Amino acid sequence: MRHFLECHRLFVATPPAAALRSIRRAYFSTSASSLKLDGGVSLVQGASRGIGLEFVKQLLEKNDKGHVVATCRNPDGATGLLELKTKFTERLSILQLDLTVETTIEASAKSITERYGFLNLLINASGILSIPNVLQPETTLSKVEKSSLMLAYEINAVGPTLVIKHMWPLLKAGGGSGTERDVAVVASLSARVGSIGDNRLGGWHSYRSSKAALNQLTKTVSVEFGRKKDPVICILLHPGTVDTDLSRPFQRNVPEGKLFTKEFSVQKLLNIINNVKSHDNGKFFAWDGQEIPW
Amino acid sequence: MRHFLECHRLFVATPPAAALRSIRRAYFSTSASSLKLDGGVSLVQGASRGIGLEFVKQLLEKNDKGHVVATCRNPDGATGLLELKTKFTERLSILQLDLTVETTIEASAKSITERYGFLNLLINASGILSIPNVLQPETTLSKVEKSSLMLAYEINAVGPTLVIKHMWPLLKAGGGSGTERDVAVVASLSARVGSIGDNRLGGWHSYRSSKAALNQLTKTVSVEFGRKKDPVICILLHPGTVDTDLSRPFQRNVPEGKLFTKEFSVQKLLNIINNVKSHDNGKFFAWDGQEIPW
Ligand SMILES: NC(=O)c1ccc[n+]([C@@H]2O[C@H](COP(=O)([O-])OP(=O)(O)OC[C@H]3O[C@@H](n4cnc5c(N)ncnc54)[C@H](OP(=O)(O)O)[C@@H]3O)[C@@H](O)[C@H]2O)c1
Ligand SMILES: NC(=O)c1ccc[n+]([C@@H]2O[C@H](COP(=O)([O-])OP(=O)(O)OC[C@H]3O[C@@H](n4cnc5c(N)ncnc54)[C@H](OP(=O)(O)O)[C@@H]3O)[C@@H](O)[C@H]2O)c1
Repeated sequence: MRHFLECHRLFVATPPAAALRSIRRAYFSTSASSLKLDGGVSLVQGASRGIGLEFVKQLLEKNDKGHVVATCRNPDGATGLLELKTKFTERLSILQLDLTVETTIEASAKSITERYGFLNLLINASGILSIPNVLQPETTLSKVEKSSLMLAYEINAVGPTLVIKHMWPLLKAGGGSGTERDVAVVASLSARVGSIGDNRLGGWHSYRSSKAALNQLTKTVSVEFGRKKDPVICILLHPGTVDTDLSRPFQRNVPEGKLFTKEFSVQKLLNIINNVKSHDNGKFFAWDGQEIPW
Repeated sequence: MRHFLECHRLFVATPPAAALRSIRRAYFSTSASSLKLDGGVSLVQGASRGIGLEFVKQLLEKNDKGHVVATCRNPDGATGLLELKTKFTERLSILQLDLTVETTIEASAKSITERYGFLNLLINASGILSIPNVLQPETTLSKVEKSSLMLAYEINAVGPTLVIKHMWPLLKAGGGSGTERDVAVVASLSARVGSIGDNRLGGWHSYRSSKAALNQLTKTVSVEFGRKKDPVICILLHPGTVDTDLSRPFQRNVPEGKLFTKEFSVQKLLNIINNVKSHDNGKFFAWDGQEIPW
């Protein structure tokens, strides 16, 4: 552990990428270290259920050296994560993070800094579409409520942006020697209905506008990332219509064969994430790799 | 006044357009009426200064029968509007409306219903970019604050949408016999920097994302409006870089000849508004009539 802490102090003091790479090389090569991080470190935010939980599972299963930090609002009740923890004890950390409470985002960044010192991948998988008695996807303008617009924006657009803000110093570390990428990646789950150009049906005002705002915030962040010497690639993903709690109330009208399993969707999305190139920075991809118009 | 109230009761009871048109015909043709509305009624929301105030001025000057309702947060301090009121006493009404207080939007809709019974044009001209010590256009992700994101969203995206929501029943009345249009129009002031596709510079996270969200909300509303038998056309406008309080702190880098006067910009924007066709519903236009990508 002493060695890890030394690395961490160095990390904080000397951010340039070359220095970071040599620190990581030195660190990974030491057999005395308590944590071997040459499989990279990934953060999945919004990991208690649905697509986020499936990301955690596949990241742990597909890279047998990879470490995963899974954040959720209520770790004690996150049964899916706790189950994975019994199997992947060493390689999975669970942290409490509620997007509406910025101090929990900062505390998570601090924990990750102390335990790992860097991140190679950040996936924002959280999102809300409907919450009984609180947020109802609107069918007409006359049902649009200020409180719904504000809540969807806070959780779907502001929250993921604050996560990127606080994790940014950790992401500057690069792709990680255990991954196929040479740069760090931020992937935020958006939705095709967030596309303004593709909006032909109307409705769902709160969800649509929050995702359009997330798209604009991510694009804005990607422009800044693209200018840095040690770029972080930032993309937006549409997972398809996936069989989770979020889509359940709306699955009746999904055409046969168009309702994906979490397993299928996450496999496709990880494929995109693992193959991003620098020219993909700031783009919005569907599960099949097609770009979605803004 | 008795006649006006009767019309209004009928208006509330029988919304179909044909009925409304015949009510208006009957109403306009009565010489006993205290208000002659055959020049149409326009609402300018955010009219205390800048582009909004200039819209009020040009609407009053260019159509000598047109009535204008100007709303602002603080009517007593709106010197520009008060000056216009001395000249256009009968044709200008000033109402108090603060976008952050929904009851003031509802109260304005009620006043307009009682006084005029309908609206042919609604212009959302309000907007915030910077407020000293409160909202600072961000130059980097590390300066992004939750409170700024939420405030810009509340005022630039949510507020105008709530105004459209509450004015919608009034707008179903059509274009107004004194105007060149045969349908009612909603025009909301967006900004080119709200375009996600056009975002090459980054920064200004709060403003950019709030305007992208406004674009998505307006597009969503336009889809619903387009489906109705008595459509309301809903468009987004970029005024150019205009010499107002909003742009003042950022005018240093504006190229020669690219800083427009309010007079020029509003003339161009009114030209777009007065010539919209139904296929323009849901589009985003710059001052020169060019469409802006989402
Ligand atoms: N499923 C689809 O068909 C579909 C389609 C398009 C886009 N998407 C997007 O994909 C992402 C994942 O969706 P999903 O289907 O997996 O949804 P889900 O099963 O409903 O899971 C949503 C996740 O977001 C978390 N979350 C909600 N509020 C939070 C907060 N305040 N702080 C932290 N986490 C919070 C939830 O945590 P709790 O357990 O604590 O509530 C949960 O882990 C979302 O961004 C969604 O918009 C999904
Ligand atoms: N000027 C430009 O170069 C430019 C460029 C692109 C887009 N735009 C857009 O054009 C629109 C008009 O801008 P402008 O240049 O005329 O700005 P401005 O001179 O700063 O005027 C802004 C107006 O918005 C009102 N407002 C602010 N907060 C409000 C609230 N909570 N409730 C009601 N009204 C509120 C202000 O009222 P108070 O007097 O009470 O503060 C004022 O009347 C904005 O949407 C802006 O984003 C302007």
